[in-house]
Amino acid sequence: MTKTLAFVLYPGITPLDLVGPLQVLSALAQIDTSFEVVVVGQDLTPQDTDTPLKLTPSHTFRQVTVPFALIVPGGTEPTFAAMADEPLLSWIRKAAQTAEVVGSVCTGSLILGAAGLLDGRQATTHWGFRDLLAKFGATPVAERWVQDGPVLTAAGVSAGIDMALHLVERLAGEQTARTVQLFIEYDPQPPLGGIDWQSADLDFFKPHARAMLESALADHPALLTRLTA
Amino acid sequence: MTKTLAFVLYPGITPLDLVGPLQVLSALAQIDTSFEVVVVGQDLTPQDTDTPLKLTPSHTFRQVTVPFALIVPGGTEPTFAAMADEPLLSWIRKAAQTAEVVGSVCTGSLILGAAGLLDGRQATTHWGFRDLLAKFGATPVAERWVQDGPVLTAAGVSAGIDMALHLVERLAGEQTARTVQLFIEYDPQPPLGGIDWQSADLDFFKPHARAMLESALADHPALLTRLTA
Repeated sequence: MTKTLAFVLYPGITPLDLVGPLQVLSALAQIDTSFEVVVVGQDLTPQDTDTPLKLTPSHTFRQVTVPFALIVPGGTEPTFAAMADEPLLSWIRKAAQTAEVVGSVCTGSLILGAAGLLDGRQATTHWGFRDLLAKFGATPVAERWVQDGPVLTAAGVSAGIDMALHLVERLAGEQTARTVQLFIEYDPQPPLGGIDWQSADLDFFKPHARAMLESALADHPALLTRLTA
Repeated sequence: MTKTLAFVLYPGITPLDLVGPLQVLSALAQIDTSFEVVVVGQDLTPQDTDTPLKLTPSHTFRQVTVPFALIVPGGTEPTFAAMADEPLLSWIRKAAQTAEVVGSVCTGSLILGAAGLLDGRQATTHWGFRDLLAKFGATPVAERWVQDGPVLTAAGVSAGIDMALHLVERLAGEQTARTVQLFIEYDPQPPLGGIDWQSADLDFFKPHARAMLESALADHPALLTRLTA
């Protein structure tokens, strides 16, 4: 039976969160036809992102009920609002009951948390929001990606590429992972090198993060209190 | 005056080619409002990609006439077909007359070549198609990205992220580039390390590349002969 790898689309996401691992897993599905990739959303209308680009899913939530894997991308304010999107959370909860991989990129893990799927798990997210994971009963971990049982969470935005390559290796072996990496020519050379976490100013972001949460969850005071108390 | 950074969308692209640098330059535009980002296409209908995801541009070609920068993403067969898409080539040629940056990711450089913009330039593309650049009068270079006058070309797919960070540094300085890199948490950790070019089997791809070209350009024998003779 074909194993469905389902990317979850909702309004306002950071598109690289989704498209990085989508490109990796689409290459897997091209090489190994026991896998198929879908992008699922509430309906098939184009959805805004945090860039001028709009994204359109290939399937509705109703059409994809028992994916082998689901991957939830993140974003900023719209992602925090999505923590209170019951139809979205409900599809994720149900799909997670049978999925072998329950994944996220960036702040997508906060949606997994809001769906109750991170309780007692090690997990990660974008560095600017890592502390919030504890509010959902998770143990925050500062790694590029973290696997704990079926739960596979990646750090911010571009980390989804690394996580997806790890997943390809796990599902189809090292040789296939190397072929996929070659296809997408993933031989990264950040012009200024990697991030120097010691010298990076991370504190400047805290008031912005707080303001985004307060704005996104203005109509959901209980959840806002849970996350900011 | 606002400087417009225009991503060029056409049917069938590899979405990571576009979304990687789009996410980087959108972060630049958020930090420095003298820049704006647009995604331009023939019209505003959702367009297929080489994944199940559809992408919708924010502007039509007619709406964006003098961009500061244009960036053309690549793909496989549909990109080779686009080398003969006259409305697309015509917009690119015209925009390139005044643009300070004429960019591409992956096989997008072959479209720049078909538009006559690579003659006498150093350029790069996806490793599987690098030889084709010479057919357009360019000197192929095996680098992550190559700048030659206004022409800025990146290697395959994921290389667009590195190229875009270089462009941010050039346009807005090192500190802004570091901030953008932090926002998208670009601290790559490929699970199997970088690509080992010495041991990678690159020759297996040649017949596939040839077959894709022949299929895409079946109706354009002159261009096909130029590229394969």
